[in-house]
Amino acid sequence: METHDLTLITIVAEPVLEERITRECMQLGATGYTVIEARGRGSRGIRTGDIPGQNIRIETLVSEEVADRILTRASEKWFPHYAVVVWDTPVRVVRGEKY
Amino acid sequence: METHDLTLITIVAEPVLEERITRECMQLGATGYTVIEARGRGSRGIRTGDIPGQNIRIETLVSEEVADRILTRASEKWFPHYAVVVWDTPVRVVRGEKY
Amino acid sequence: METHDLTLITIVAEPVLEERITRECMQLGATGYTVIEARGRGSRGIRTGDIPGQNIRIETLVSEEVADRILTRASEKWFPHYAVVVWDTPVRVVRGEKY
Repeated sequence: METHDLTLITIVAEPVLEERITRECMQLGATGYTVIEARGRGSRGIRTGDIPGQNIRIETLVSEEVADRILTRASEKWFPHYAVVVWDTPVRVVRGEKY
Repeated sequence: METHDLTLITIVAEPVLEERITRECMQLGATGYTVIEARGRGSRGIRTGDIPGQNIRIETLVSEEVADRILTRASEKWFPHYAVVVWDTPVRVVRGEKY
Repeated sequence: METHDLTLITIVAEPVLEERITRECMQLGATGYTVIEARGRGSRGIRTGDIPGQNIRIETLVSEEVADRILTRASEKWFPHYAVVVWDTPVRVVRGEKY
């Protein structure tokens, strides 16, 4: 069984940001992502204009290098303007050679 | 890029417990949470009275101290009465100074 | 507060695989699982025949031994035929003695 050590980035944001965030993640080197509908409450004001409390949860499995790029982008470009929460965690991926 | 080491707590429970669990997490020091609709099956009987197999998945990013409070609460107050699964994992959060 | 170190396995796959994957996880020793509806895009072609881009995200908390069995199964039986992404991460579970 072949495994790879990768980084799982999770992003919680307003639904209106889905297209922008997933596009930028792909531009920064991600090769895929998963989006889940969620709802919530947060100190960063996770909320949307149309449906109170609704948000999205985006996950992407990336290399450490791509992870650093996405976290830097989040810190510099998303945080100053939007209610976004971003975290990463190391994971072990089966047959991760495509990431 | 500023990051903080925090703890991600995940709670899977019956939907009827959402209000209580999220309220208690906030009272114990959490500053936000995300709720996702899920379904499942488990040795702890993850199921609800109204919709078989449906449950919720709550996530909250907290400090280690708050995490210990929530896990202790789960162990002492939720587990004896409800079908709840709780786990935590260390994560790295971008600009986590608000947690 | 009693905790156990377990492995959280996450599987992202086409919806048509839900029954097979959850059944095989249980046969390999898992005692429960959670399924979440998701959508996404990936290098492994995460997509379904009926609804473009829709997929499922399965989570199961297992021992290290069961985790190895599931990852081996994924590597040998799921990957050659299906668009599946599988990863695991160590977690700390409250009162995990049932897993």
